[in-house]
Amino acid sequence: MSDTGFALDSRLHNDTRHVASLELCDVLLMNDTRFPWLVLVPRLAGMVEICDLATEQQAMLWREVNHASQALRSLEPFDKLNLGALGNIVRQLHVHIVGRREGDAAWPGPVWGSGAAVPYGDDGLASLLTRLRDALKD
Amino acid sequence: MSDTGFALDSRLHNDTRHVASLELCDVLLMNDTRFPWLVLVPRLAGMVEICDLATEQQAMLWREVNHASQALRSLEPFDKLNLGALGNIVRQLHVHIVGRREGDAAWPGPVWGSGAAVPYGDDGLASLLTRLRDALKD
Repeated sequence: MSDTGFALDSRLHNDTRHVASLELCDVLLMNDTRFPWLVLVPRLAGMVEICDLATEQQAMLWREVNHASQALRSLEPFDKLNLGALGNIVRQLHVHIVGRREGDAAWPGPVWGSGAAVPYGDDGLASLLTRLRDALKD
Repeated sequence: MSDTGFALDSRLHNDTRHVASLELCDVLLMNDTRFPWLVLVPRLAGMVEICDLATEQQAMLWREVNHASQALRSLEPFDKLNLGALGNIVRQLHVHIVGRREGDAAWPGPVWGSGAAVPYGDDGLASLLTRLRDALKD
């Protein structure tokens, strides 16, 4: 999969930490302890809408979303998984995978636009990244 | 695709109108003039998480989401498509496809939990359902 011309949006870069690179997508962790929250970004320059991806790219994106969902769920139980591809603010195509717990900071509403992120500490972040990378290898 | 034991959640039933039945999913129109908004519901009893569907069911779901996205976009232009599978309130598996316009009633936030629906009138609803059904045939 060519990375030609792709550069991660600066807002996504600032809000996340890189976890791993899959065949199509970079897997990012939102730096927000309130929610276990991954963001998948296909390394395709200029893409905005999933329905504008080629058929095989769409299939690969959803396979990787499924893989990352399973990895996130393997780390800790949650009550509901939330998937979203919005892009109203950041147009670069990205897919959110969020583990939701009853009573969490946005429950039962959506996480998007819900208050300010609470960043991880350095140790917690390093540990979580290691666990996520291990889970994504399975 | 067997429909055995499947019954549409009562809240989804009340908030939407039936548009069409695809091979896996029923396509519903949210009865809310504020947003062009489809909901796809796989006719599978007891399903909650997309990542618990069989591989081929996931692939079919996303093909139908793509087909419905293209149909919705063919009716009128919008600035951004929003996809979401949340289920924090209604657990029955369903996928939202929402056409967003800059300055719409929830822009740039998510539509979920954003104010009260503004229902269609009878004539507008009938006309839109006809156009959607035609677009889904393509």
